[in-house]
Amino acid sequence: MDEFALIRRYFAPLSPAAEGVVLGIGDDAAILAPPLGHELLMSSDTLVAGRHFPLTTAPYDIGWKALAVNLSDLAAMGAEPLWFLLALTLPQPDEAWLAGFADGLGTLARTHGIALVGGDTTRGNLSITITAVGSVPAGSSLRRDGAKLGDQICVTGTLGDAALGLQLNGSENRSPCAQSEHDLVALHARLDRPTPRLEAGLLLRGFANAAIDLSDGLAGDLGHVLAASGVGADLQADALPVSEAFARQAEAGDRLALQAAGGDDYELCVCLPPDRLAAARTAIAPLPLTVIGTISAEPGLRWWATDGTQLKPELLSYQHFDDRRQAP
Amino acid sequence: MDEFALIRRYFAPLSPAAEGVVLGIGDDAAILAPPLGHELLMSSDTLVAGRHFPLTTAPYDIGWKALAVNLSDLAAMGAEPLWFLLALTLPQPDEAWLAGFADGLGTLARTHGIALVGGDTTRGNLSITITAVGSVPAGSSLRRDGAKLGDQICVTGTLGDAALGLQLNGSENRSPCAQSEHDLVALHARLDRPTPRLEAGLLLRGFANAAIDLSDGLAGDLGHVLAASGVGADLQADALPVSEAFARQAEAGDRLALQAAGGDDYELCVCLPPDRLAAARTAIAPLPLTVIGTISAEPGLRWWATDGTQLKPELLSYQHFDDRRQAP
Repeated sequence: MDEFALIRRYFAPLSPAAEGVVLGIGDDAAILAPPLGHELLMSSDTLVAGRHFPLTTAPYDIGWKALAVNLSDLAAMGAEPLWFLLALTLPQPDEAWLAGFADGLGTLARTHGIALVGGDTTRGNLSITITAVGSVPAGSSLRRDGAKLGDQICVTGTLGDAALGLQLNGSENRSPCAQSEHDLVALHARLDRPTPRLEAGLLLRGFANAAIDLSDGLAGDLGHVLAASGVGADLQADALPVSEAFARQAEAGDRLALQAAGGDDYELCVCLPPDRLAAARTAIAPLPLTVIGTISAEPGLRWWATDGTQLKPELLSYQHFDDRRQAP
Repeated sequence: MDEFALIRRYFAPLSPAAEGVVLGIGDDAAILAPPLGHELLMSSDTLVAGRHFPLTTAPYDIGWKALAVNLSDLAAMGAEPLWFLLALTLPQPDEAWLAGFADGLGTLARTHGIALVGGDTTRGNLSITITAVGSVPAGSSLRRDGAKLGDQICVTGTLGDAALGLQLNGSENRSPCAQSEHDLVALHARLDRPTPRLEAGLLLRGFANAAIDLSDGLAGDLGHVLAASGVGADLQADALPVSEAFARQAEAGDRLALQAAGGDDYELCVCLPPDRLAAARTAIAPLPLTVIGTISAEPGLRWWATDGTQLKPELLSYQHFDDRRQAP
């Protein structure tokens, strides 16, 4: 089988007949019919081997995560996923690798009903760029620039699991008990196969004034919301939601840094008026929505302890050119 | 200036207020309002340093070509360009490099009125993936699968210039006369800064039954049209249009291979009924539209000499995993 036939074989099942797809893979460009009365959301994210995932990552997990990080961007806008394009650069068309990659990618794509409609395959160091397209009724997107004074700042799910999973990858001295092993599996699942909060994003459209997905860490990502909205924030460090595995395995001194700056959470951070909180919680249940702070007039991000003292900003923000995902 | 500010500074001018752009760079995803009654065309192409362009290529030319190859895909569908996303992976944010890259990219983008609306910047080996979006009135896209028995097969412009430019890069024994230098500049311009035939594609929408852009070489690309349309083709080797520089500089024995399999032409190949040829030519003038053969019932691609003998298919087709651009 020639190389192109091999690649087509693994990706064809990801390109089913789907709504709005007039012509999918196989021409110079896909032909797509956007839903009437809707706006489109488009986002591109690149994962580079050895930088965004360890070289030893399973191909299934690479395929999953490459799509998940894009779907998370759509979730943050409140969008319904429609279509995606895959630009895959790989050293050689290894069949076992392709099978695993397409399986992970396809499993997540089918879960959310998003169809592969085009892309490109080139040879080079392993790198994956996915462009995801979603839609919202015109004017109803969640944006970064709508946070209002007095809004409650909330996050879905729990924070810090992926960062702790990554930290413990390099750890030598953890106890080899069954509970620890179980926790590690859970933490690594958060790192390798993040769950994009698409349904929550859709449901929060009627409640939130602003939203962002947490890919680079809460402090940095919320900072983008504050800058775009022209506001500040006061956050309660002890309010950050933790998983049971995180509660058991994280060192006390590392917790805030892992949760606030670790990244790779792919939860949503939303700002909403206090009187909408209860209804928003009901809407996205059983996914938890936790209040972690308040939008304030004074610019900047301040962290507070339970005893009312302000925490120093060390470890709550970092800026690596390589690890940040951001529009150019 | 931090790295992100640097990058934003160079790309912000590529993201002007543009039709349909509700929200451009700076949120989790761009918000876009598709034109009413139109279908969208989307295409992603990746250029990898050292594979799709030499490492010594000027950053201006890299920026130009990365967008041009995507615009050429839109041209082949008869689309009007609207928006693009840029996923840029580079070793470090070198300011001089970024300035040149953004200049080449921006010059071509402004020429065709296409706005940068989002993307991603990551660190790694130099690689550029652009996703381009265009539109056509619903149902009027040019496709690969519409070629009809008796259609004349035509190409825009001239073929083989880029491939000859690449071949002469490695040549030691060319004569250093002024004419040769002038020709080399012209051939390298075709290789480094190809002209996407967007206007011709738009104008040919009313005439052509099928179209494709010539990125991998005429033989392979026309083969996709034949396969999709379920037809064959007879081509006249001596009918392939050549530039003056090509006519002067190409070795006689290399000409057909350069023109039929060299690639990087970024001309359009269209199939149209004979009675539409004159009007199509008038429509796209002064860009030449040259008849090179005929669609026939017998499957496959046959090449003929002026004396009526059939040419052997050697050198008229190649398949490198690395050099082909194709949907996965």
